[in-house]
Amino acid sequence: MTRKRSTPEAQGRYAYEGLDRALHEKARLSVMVSLSTRSDGLLFGELKELCALTDGNLSRHLDVLREEKLVEVWKGFSGRRPQTLVRLTAEGRERFLRYLGELQKLLEDTRRAQQAAEAAGAAVKRPERPDLDFSFRPA
Amino acid sequence: MTRKRSTPEAQGRYAYEGLDRALHEKARLSVMVSLSTRSDGLLFGELKELCALTDGNLSRHLDVLREEKLVEVWKGFSGRRPQTLVRLTAEGRERFLRYLGELQKLLEDTRRAQQAAEAAGAAVKRPERPDLDFSFRPA
Repeated sequence: MTRKRSTPEAQGRYAYEGLDRALHEKARLSVMVSLSTRSDGLLFGELKELCALTDGNLSRHLDVLREEKLVEVWKGFSGRRPQTLVRLTAEGRERFLRYLGELQKLLEDTRRAQQAAEAAGAAVKRPERPDLDFSFRPA
Repeated sequence: MTRKRSTPEAQGRYAYEGLDRALHEKARLSVMVSLSTRSDGLLFGELKELCALTDGNLSRHLDVLREEKLVEVWKGFSGRRPQTLVRLTAEGRERFLRYLGELQKLLEDTRRAQQAAEAAGAAVKRPERPDLDFSFRPA
């Protein structure tokens, strides 16, 4: 056990375990935000456009979201034309809200840090750690 | 051209291109938040603890961040013990702030959607799209 400077509060303080990997991936996050704006669902083509994704990419990410039971996919026809409707499940909405709560926490952590830095003045030019009796050189 | 319902505003509306992939990855995001709280840098061991990462994982992610010129790594000694100090570069701080701005935008988009949904009452039980003359069944 060599962690002398360790404190219980420090362990995982900025780990953000709530950043659910199924939701955090950029394209899926984009899909989830789009769907959260329409409780009655979005057509595949509409989603593609809102998220700026290709057919293949959107399909692949919808498969992941469906496996996780975050979205449901409905098939139907508009006249003779097959259509796909996608919407959030109740579980999807709930998990997404928890995810957003974690993002909010992250933003508050950085905001607090930024205010502290501004209060302390300009950025230091070289590493200064008065608590350590050694000097650093770039790796 | 078959996108009849397309509008110029819809294209990429929720794509969040500003979610920089170098920063958006969960472990690297955790490292960036940690470093943003300490302008004088953090020791490797401190970072490991704040982010709840293993040595190998942290090294790998620091390599990515260093290649992107987002962080700088300093080597030094504390007595005879080698130490590694990591801190944000000016560019890293700037790119991270832009990234945080995009997250803020995402949160505002979802908040607006949530308020609209609450105003409209409870969630619909089945897909209802009065603008479409067809019925859906689960895929």
